[in-house]
Amino acid sequence: MSRDKYDKIISLAKRRGFLNPSFEIYGGVAGFYSYGPLGSVMKRNIENLWRRFYLFREGFIEIDTPTVTPFEVLKASGHVDEFTDLTAICDSCGRYFKAEDIERDGKYICPVCNKEIKNLRYTNLMFETKIGIGDERKAFLRPETAQGIFTEFHNLYRFVREKLPFGVIQVGRGYRNEIAPRQGVIRLREFSMAEAEIFFDPDNKKHDRFDEVKDEKIPLLIGDKVKRVSIDNAVKNKIVGNEALAYYMLLTYRFLIACGIDKDKIRFRKHEKDELAHYARECWDAELYSERFGWIECVGIADRTAYDLESHIKHSGADLYAIRRLDSPREVEIERIEVDMGKLGPMFKEKAKIIKEKLESLDLSNLDQDIEIEVEGEKIKIPRDCYRIKKAKEKISVERFIPHVIEPSYGIDRIFFHILEHSYLETTKSGEEYRLLKLPYLIAPIKAGVFPLVSDERLCRIARDIHDMLMKNGIESYYDESGSIGRRYARMDEIGTPFCITVDFDTLEDDSVTIRYRDTTEQIRIEIKKVVDFFKEEESKAIDGSINY
Amino acid sequence: MSRDKYDKIISLAKRRGFLNPSFEIYGGVAGFYSYGPLGSVMKRNIENLWRRFYLFREGFIEIDTPTVTPFEVLKASGHVDEFTDLTAICDSCGRYFKAEDIERDGKYICPVCNKEIKNLRYTNLMFETKIGIGDERKAFLRPETAQGIFTEFHNLYRFVREKLPFGVIQVGRGYRNEIAPRQGVIRLREFSMAEAEIFFDPDNKKHDRFDEVKDEKIPLLIGDKVKRVSIDNAVKNKIVGNEALAYYMLLTYRFLIACGIDKDKIRFRKHEKDELAHYARECWDAELYSERFGWIECVGIADRTAYDLESHIKHSGADLYAIRRLDSPREVEIERIEVDMGKLGPMFKEKAKIIKEKLESLDLSNLDQDIEIEVEGEKIKIPRDCYRIKKAKEKISVERFIPHVIEPSYGIDRIFFHILEHSYLETTKSGEEYRLLKLPYLIAPIKAGVFPLVSDERLCRIARDIHDMLMKNGIESYYDESGSIGRRYARMDEIGTPFCITVDFDTLEDDSVTIRYRDTTEQIRIEIKKVVDFFKEEESKAIDGSINY
Repeated sequence: MSRDKYDKIISLAKRRGFLNPSFEIYGGVAGFYSYGPLGSVMKRNIENLWRRFYLFREGFIEIDTPTVTPFEVLKASGHVDEFTDLTAICDSCGRYFKAEDIERDGKYICPVCNKEIKNLRYTNLMFETKIGIGDERKAFLRPETAQGIFTEFHNLYRFVREKLPFGVIQVGRGYRNEIAPRQGVIRLREFSMAEAEIFFDPDNKKHDRFDEVKDEKIPLLIGDKVKRVSIDNAVKNKIVGNEALAYYMLLTYRFLIACGIDKDKIRFRKHEKDELAHYARECWDAELYSERFGWIECVGIADRTAYDLESHIKHSGADLYAIRRLDSPREVEIERIEVDMGKLGPMFKEKAKIIKEKLESLDLSNLDQDIEIEVEGEKIKIPRDCYRIKKAKEKISVERFIPHVIEPSYGIDRIFFHILEHSYLETTKSGEEYRLLKLPYLIAPIKAGVFPLVSDERLCRIARDIHDMLMKNGIESYYDESGSIGRRYARMDEIGTPFCITVDFDTLEDDSVTIRYRDTTEQIRIEIKKVVDFFKEEESKAIDGSINY
Repeated sequence: MSRDKYDKIISLAKRRGFLNPSFEIYGGVAGFYSYGPLGSVMKRNIENLWRRFYLFREGFIEIDTPTVTPFEVLKASGHVDEFTDLTAICDSCGRYFKAEDIERDGKYICPVCNKEIKNLRYTNLMFETKIGIGDERKAFLRPETAQGIFTEFHNLYRFVREKLPFGVIQVGRGYRNEIAPRQGVIRLREFSMAEAEIFFDPDNKKHDRFDEVKDEKIPLLIGDKVKRVSIDNAVKNKIVGNEALAYYMLLTYRFLIACGIDKDKIRFRKHEKDELAHYARECWDAELYSERFGWIECVGIADRTAYDLESHIKHSGADLYAIRRLDSPREVEIERIEVDMGKLGPMFKEKAKIIKEKLESLDLSNLDQDIEIEVEGEKIKIPRDCYRIKKAKEKISVERFIPHVIEPSYGIDRIFFHILEHSYLETTKSGEEYRLLKLPYLIAPIKAGVFPLVSDERLCRIARDIHDMLMKNGIESYYDESGSIGRRYARMDEIGTPFCITVDFDTLEDDSVTIRYRDTTEQIRIEIKKVVDFFKEEESKAIDGSINY
């Protein structure tokens, strides 16, 4: 049986400590993967490069909120009702399937029994749990990090001193209790996400730096062809809804390339109306190509409009509005409650005053027929004849509005896998299979392999000192003295280590070492005392090349 | 009502974006906190400083495993049965309490009804959930990251080329469904942990560098007094069980001080027999002092012996052994199965051969009366007369054993809070209350405040350029042009920013700026082109000062 590229990558990933299925000693559980010693570092490198773009370059702020999320939050956000998959349950064998996985010509056929399934229902995909015991509260594991940002909007808006637009990021776990995940690392039940929520005045979905980059092109799927279109033209021709959305698509494109994704294996595909998430008005997926799965969504860039903040205002009653200062004061017609104390006083006695104040401060825009007011924990219905609604004119200099949100949301695990696949090279060397990962410097989990040329204690000691010196400077290094030097190069090439340092007998004379470049196998000679600077320089260059746009 | 230090810290933390109770717009849920724009960065700084110690200095490896954990893993680890709190349920009001919180003179008194509670039971503290639908599997949110490491032991041991000791770290969320958490940020239901599991040959619980540091002292609680004892004496006088444990206590002590914890507010307390976790033989807590809560456990350094690996071997049948090469081959008596094919053949026909092989490779050390073998998914009982168990002598040059584990486990949120409290200073300036956080450079969320002296566009432009330049170099900077310069210094002091850079009119002439030191308010003049180097130098010094021991 010939192994495809996916099998090869996964096998290398497992053998060399990038990632492997979790809980294998207990038979494994579909949809869970563990990052090994190299994988965890590489994943962190991806996340930190992402932060370079969003925190350090865009100037966003980061927050870190719980994964356990109470029912109310996800009821308000629409996830309790909408975060579902159509599920097919086979009456014959009792198995559950994600309906779209087993669809054939509009029918759902059980792949085990080969019979048509008619028993279909929507299943919610959130992991459910309970907080506390006794008075327990229903809760879920968050399906996205975004809701943690929306529910904190008020604090965040104050933190940025009430200026729009501003962006907030969160990097962390998300959960989706997939019905029957069968695509290995591509479809996980627990995954790592990096999300940015950018809050805009809906009248102004633009980006400060749009003009600087407007001629840069991104690959858009239009019809069934990928066309490279400048973001300026994409907006002007109404392919992409607004400048901000287009800007973040370009940012995504650049980030993916900086990660080591092949630029010819990226395309942006616009969601059809019927595949849009319940919260999105427009959404573009950055899809990456893999040999086994074809084009896979790895990033979604969505215009969520005011959907989420509006829902949370409605459900929580909290003030999640922003303020817009008007150029000149404007006269508006407002409705005001005028209380009839003659009626209210005798009816509510000592509570009448506080009821009057509450009535007068009510938001009349979503006023129902009957007014119900809470006073000291007690709900009180106010009879209609206790007040009148009067129209009046008022001059205002600020107005409240609900910001719109544009959200680039990145699936880190899928990006991780595609980086491995796109950087994987297979050749032969001296007749043997030779594997190489062309990982960018910033992504590679190990930056330097450090070897004594032979197992001579004098060379070993120097090599170990160089290894320690690099590590002390936060540069991941791997010391290796076992096997031939060719074998050791091969081991480092296979995990994408960009540089190998060899200590040889000349080192004893000239205090210098040889540095070998992974991609060219070119070698240079360098003084030991300049080794750390060499790596710091490489890092600076890599950062400049990635985010200096 | 006078506010104590806890109130002041929490109020500052909330106002300035360090942390706040989560889900406040829905009334909040006890035991959940969110890290704001400054808090998330500071928390990451703590974790990364911790990695400096454990990854870069100790040379450990890191992994990253799921938080959702299947039942089998936590059944094996003992958490299903032992991770409990004694719970008191009031018959009168129906409320649940952690029994030890409401104990008075051996009785449990309901703080609401003031009646004695007799209804006591043990409650498991894990958040429960289910994986999948239909054939769902019971699962929990992990109570510790450690089990993710133990279940991967085989892969990790291979990764380090089967050499002991080696250490594995994991940084991430842990969960504990507290019954009624009432200590704010100290008792969280979802928290961040940093754990290291170090695997030892049980005959050799030592550390390579012990001798280098053996005279350094750590504060041990002995009786009711804290005594500063060298780790060497602590081991020699059998206060601490072994050198490795003592070494990691010292490492913890140094880490906490590097974080900004007051060294006089740290002590190590040994667990009494009856408070030891089910997996621990010896455990020392690093306790930190806070004004409201007194001494609080923030780090636990435990000798878990072979408990976890042994349990997982028993429950999963997996090979989680290590190999010890013997100095000289040793003759041992072994038991071997000798199969009687005359009986086995007729009984199992074509399967007999494979059954024979399986029988011969069986591990006889935990052999039950009846042998059951799985062949092609079918379980087959082997009658007793089909084989004999024979004793034989054999020469072995390696032997298998189960490694012992020493575990330093850090509660990041508690350390976070104590850093704030210990670095908090309150004075007055010009008659007004003045607040300062003396955060170490590596911990401070913002490294530089950048100000134009006045709101002159020429100065603003230069200041913004400096801000951009720092950010591009990964140095967190905050640009501020609003309010008096004193006000801006005060804002930065309050969040612990170590340096403020001011652009003034001289800058237009000499291309230099003023850098003010937070702790001394001393000012120096420095060329703009050297500003980035200034911060890189400060970082290097801070790292050297922390981990260069």
